[in-house]
Amino acid sequence: MGKVRNILFAMCDQLRFDYLSCMGHPRLETPNIDRLAAQGVLFRHAYCNSPVCGPSRMSFYTGRYPTSHGTTWNAVPLSIRELTLGDYLRPAGLSVALVGKTHVVPDLAGMARFAIDPKSPQGRLLAEGGFAPFDRHEGHLAPPPDSPYNQYLRAAGYAGDNPWEDYANGADDGDGGVVSGWAMRNARRPARVDRAHSETAYTTDRAIAFIAAQGDRPWLLHLSYIKPHWPYLAPAPYNDMYGPNDCIAVHRRPAERDAPHPVIAAYFSHDECQAFARDEVVDLVKPTYMGLVKEIDDNLGRLFDMLDEAGRMADTLIVFTSDHGDFLGDHWLGEKEIFYEAAARIPLIVYDPDPAARPRRGAVEDRFAEGVDLLPTFLEALGLAVPEHLVEGRSLLPLTRGGPADDWREAVVSELDYSYRRARQVLGLGAREGRAWMIRDRRWKYVHWRGFPPQLFDLDQDPGEFVDLGSDPGHAGVVADMRGRLFDWLGNRKTRTTAPDADVLRSTDSHRKRGIHIGIW
Amino acid sequence: MGKVRNILFAMCDQLRFDYLSCMGHPRLETPNIDRLAAQGVLFRHAYCNSPVCGPSRMSFYTGRYPTSHGTTWNAVPLSIRELTLGDYLRPAGLSVALVGKTHVVPDLAGMARFAIDPKSPQGRLLAEGGFAPFDRHEGHLAPPPDSPYNQYLRAAGYAGDNPWEDYANGADDGDGGVVSGWAMRNARRPARVDRAHSETAYTTDRAIAFIAAQGDRPWLLHLSYIKPHWPYLAPAPYNDMYGPNDCIAVHRRPAERDAPHPVIAAYFSHDECQAFARDEVVDLVKPTYMGLVKEIDDNLGRLFDMLDEAGRMADTLIVFTSDHGDFLGDHWLGEKEIFYEAAARIPLIVYDPDPAARPRRGAVEDRFAEGVDLLPTFLEALGLAVPEHLVEGRSLLPLTRGGPADDWREAVVSELDYSYRRARQVLGLGAREGRAWMIRDRRWKYVHWRGFPPQLFDLDQDPGEFVDLGSDPGHAGVVADMRGRLFDWLGNRKTRTTAPDADVLRSTDSHRKRGIHIGIW
Repeated sequence: MGKVRNILFAMCDQLRFDYLSCMGHPRLETPNIDRLAAQGVLFRHAYCNSPVCGPSRMSFYTGRYPTSHGTTWNAVPLSIRELTLGDYLRPAGLSVALVGKTHVVPDLAGMARFAIDPKSPQGRLLAEGGFAPFDRHEGHLAPPPDSPYNQYLRAAGYAGDNPWEDYANGADDGDGGVVSGWAMRNARRPARVDRAHSETAYTTDRAIAFIAAQGDRPWLLHLSYIKPHWPYLAPAPYNDMYGPNDCIAVHRRPAERDAPHPVIAAYFSHDECQAFARDEVVDLVKPTYMGLVKEIDDNLGRLFDMLDEAGRMADTLIVFTSDHGDFLGDHWLGEKEIFYEAAARIPLIVYDPDPAARPRRGAVEDRFAEGVDLLPTFLEALGLAVPEHLVEGRSLLPLTRGGPADDWREAVVSELDYSYRRARQVLGLGAREGRAWMIRDRRWKYVHWRGFPPQLFDLDQDPGEFVDLGSDPGHAGVVADMRGRLFDWLGNRKTRTTAPDADVLRSTDSHRKRGIHIGIW
Repeated sequence: MGKVRNILFAMCDQLRFDYLSCMGHPRLETPNIDRLAAQGVLFRHAYCNSPVCGPSRMSFYTGRYPTSHGTTWNAVPLSIRELTLGDYLRPAGLSVALVGKTHVVPDLAGMARFAIDPKSPQGRLLAEGGFAPFDRHEGHLAPPPDSPYNQYLRAAGYAGDNPWEDYANGADDGDGGVVSGWAMRNARRPARVDRAHSETAYTTDRAIAFIAAQGDRPWLLHLSYIKPHWPYLAPAPYNDMYGPNDCIAVHRRPAERDAPHPVIAAYFSHDECQAFARDEVVDLVKPTYMGLVKEIDDNLGRLFDMLDEAGRMADTLIVFTSDHGDFLGDHWLGEKEIFYEAAARIPLIVYDPDPAARPRRGAVEDRFAEGVDLLPTFLEALGLAVPEHLVEGRSLLPLTRGGPADDWREAVVSELDYSYRRARQVLGLGAREGRAWMIRDRRWKYVHWRGFPPQLFDLDQDPGEFVDLGSDPGHAGVVADMRGRLFDWLGNRKTRTTAPDADVLRSTDSHRKRGIHIGIW
C-alpha cells in the first residue's frame, strides 16, 4: 500500500508557466511554491488541453480531452454522461470537495431528461463537476450579494449589498470616489480590502478550515484560486510590490502584427488584444499580475505550514498547477486561447509523499505532462483502477517515483473551440467551424486551424514562436508529419464509453458460447 | 404543411445492394420492391456507416456516425446519452414502434448511475433504442421459449420448448432426423415451417397488425426483418426456387487470397471466411439467400397492398433499406465488416408521398446517401427541426423532391471496430487498436487501417476492387488527399452535444451583457 491518503489539488487561474521563481522568473520570488517543487517534481513542459478555463478544467476533472468530454468552451455545459474526479474517488471513501472556482456549467437539459432534480444530492454533484462545494466562487463573475464571500466581507466590516464589487474589486480614485477593477487603467491602485480579507486569503482560509475539519478522514480538496486572472486588482502591499522594471519584457515583434495568421488577425479585433497591444496597458497590468502571484505564494506558505504541522505532508499528494496562461501582450494578444507557449503551457508541480518518490524529490522533469494526466495520477496514487476505455491521460507516478516510462509520450495536444468568440463572427464562420488543434513535440509546434492554413513553429530555431512556417514549402514534410500525428490522435479518442476494455477482450470470438454459430459448415 | 404523417422504416438484415431486380440482379425478381422504387427514388449509391449490424443500426437510429454515438460494434451498449428516433418523434405525437430486430444492447451501467429502472417506461425505451417494442425478435440469437414468435408457432401447431429451433431453424434430414439451419451444409433443405409461419411472414403479419391498429393516429414503424441474414434456411418453396446457375458469379481472384492486406489476412482465419472460400458453400448458400430475399419481396407485396387499400400510401413515407451487405464468398470473405462494396453498400429506396415529390417518382439517384441521413429525412418530412449540433446526416428530401442540393456530399464514410473479433487477436492488438475508416468518393475508395497500410481502389479503372493501390508510390498523392479528407471528417464529429448551435450564435461575444468585462481600459 502506498502512503497517499489525501490529495490537495491546487490550481491557479490564468497563471503563466514562467511567473514563478522556480520556473525562472528573474524578479518574482515564490519561495513557498519553490519549496513544494524542491520536495516534489517540477514539470517544466506541462500543457493544458485547451488554453481556455472551462475546457481545460473539464479535462483535469475527467481525464479526457475536450473533443471527448464535449465541453469545448466555457459556456458549454458539462454533460452528465461524463465521470469526474468525484465519481471516481467518492466511492473509495474520500471526501471530494471544492474551494473556489470550477467553471462548470450544469447540464440542465441532460438532468431534465432523466428527471434528476438539480437540487437533489446527485443533481448538485452533477452541477458542480462532481465536487461537493465547500465554498464555490467563480472569479470571472461578480458573486451574488448573498454569496459566502460577500457575507464574510460584511462580517469583516465591509458594508453594502455587494462588498466584493465595492471593496475586493474596487479602488479609491483619490477624489473620494470608487473605481472598478474591471477597468485595467486602475490596475496599480490597491483594492479596498485588507490583504487578510482578499479573495486569495479567504480561499486559503477556507481550504485550511476544510482540511482541519477532516481530521483523519481521507479527502481530495480542489483548492482553486481565481487569481491572477482578471480583474487585475490586488490589495496592498501586492499592488505596489513590483514596477515595470521588474517585468519580463513583452514578447512580440512588429512582423507578427503586420502579417498575422487569418484567425489571429480576427482575434486582434477583440477588446483584450486591442488593449494589450498598448505598452501602457502592459506596463500597468504586469506588476499587479506579479503581485497577485506573490499573494498566492504567501498564502500557500500558510497552507503548507498548516499541512506540515498537522502531519499531512506524510500522506497528502499535492499538485500545484494552473488552467492556462495569460498573454499579457505577448504576440500582440491579451488573455489566452491561441496556442503560443504563454497560454498553452502551464506550471505543474507534483509532490508525492510516498517513500518511493524519495529519489525524485526536487527533480526537474522535461518530459511532457498534460492536464488529462492528473486524474489517472490520483487514481494510481490511491491504488484505484484507471478505466482505460474512458481516461485519456496517463499517470505521472512513473515520473514522480522514477518507475519505467520508456514509452513516454513524445507530443502533447491542446484544443480550441472559438465558436463563441467574436473572431468567429469576424471570419464569417458557422457555429461549428471555429475549431483548432495544436500538437507539439520536442522540436515542432503545429496548429491545425479548420478552414485556414496551419501554423508551424520550429522551437529549436525559433523558441519565441515568431516565424510561422506553416505555409513554407520547405517545411511541407514536417507539416504532413505533424498533421498525420494529429490525424492518429483524432482517430484515437475514447468515445466507445460503454464498453470497458476487459469486456472487449473477454468477449472476443465468444459468439459460439452465446449460441451464435457463424459460418459453420 | 407536407403530407407525411406516418413513416414505414423497413430494413432487411444483411441484404446486399445488388440482390434486387431494380438494382440489376439478372435472375432474382423483386417486383414489389421494384414497385416501391418506381413510385419513389432509388438510391444506387447508398452506404451504411459501419458494415456491422449494431453500429450501422445505431447510426440509422441516432443520425450519428459510430465514432460519435460510441456503439462501434455489436456488443457495445447504446449509451443512454444518445437521442434516438423515438426521442425525436414521440414528442411530436407519433407512436414509434418496432417489429423485428434492432441489435440494441442496453446501457445498464448508465441506467444504474441515474437510478433508472430498466423495467420502467423510460428504462424500457432506453433499452430498446427508443422504439416501443410491438414485437422485438433478434435473428442472430435463438429466441427464448416464451418469445412471442415461439408462442405463435406453438399456437400454429409446432410443438415443443423451442419451435423456432426445431421448425423455423430446423430441416428434415431425410432419415427421420432434424438438422440445424446453423450449419450451412443444410442451406438448401426446406425449413420445417410453412411459408405462412416463417419469421418473415410472421414479422410482416405483425407489421400489418400494428398499422391497422393505429387507425388515423400517426406512427413510425421500424419493420426490421431478420433475413436474409444467416441462419441461411428458407421454407418451401423459397429453398428451391433458385439454383447455382441463377447466381451472380462469385467475385474473387486468386491474387487477393495470395497477397492479402494484413488485416484481411487475419479475417481469413475466421470461420465464415474459411467456409465461404469453398465453392460448394457459395453454391449452396447463394440460392437460399436469393430465396430469402424473394420471400421478403412477396411479403412486402402483402404489406404494400394493405397500405394501398387503407389509403396510407397518401400520407406514409416509406423507406426500404438494409443495415449492410453480405460477401457470400466475394473477395474470399464471408459475412461483412470489410469495406468492399458487397458489404458497405446498401439498397435504399425512399417513397415520399408528398405531391412535391411527383417529379422525382421513379428517379434513379446516383448521389451519395448514408444511414445517418434517414433520421433527418424523417424529421424534415414531419416538419420537425433537425438539431444540427447532434445530427450528422443530411435530409434526403431535396433529392426526393428535386429541391436545391448543389452542395451535396462528394464522399461517404463508413467505420469499423474489429476489437471484438478474432482478427484483432491474430494481429496481436489491444482492446482499442482494431479500428478502420473508409472514405469513398466518385472515383476512389480509401481505407485507413490504424497501424497498418491503407487500402486504395480506383473504382473507375477497377470497379471490382481487386487492385489495392494503397502502397503504390504512384498513388501517394491520392492517398494523401483522401487521408486529408478523412482527417477533416474526424475533426468534424459532433461531440459538443450539450450546446445547440443557436445557443452558440446567441452567446457569441455576449460576456459584457453578463457583467463580465474583459480587456477594457
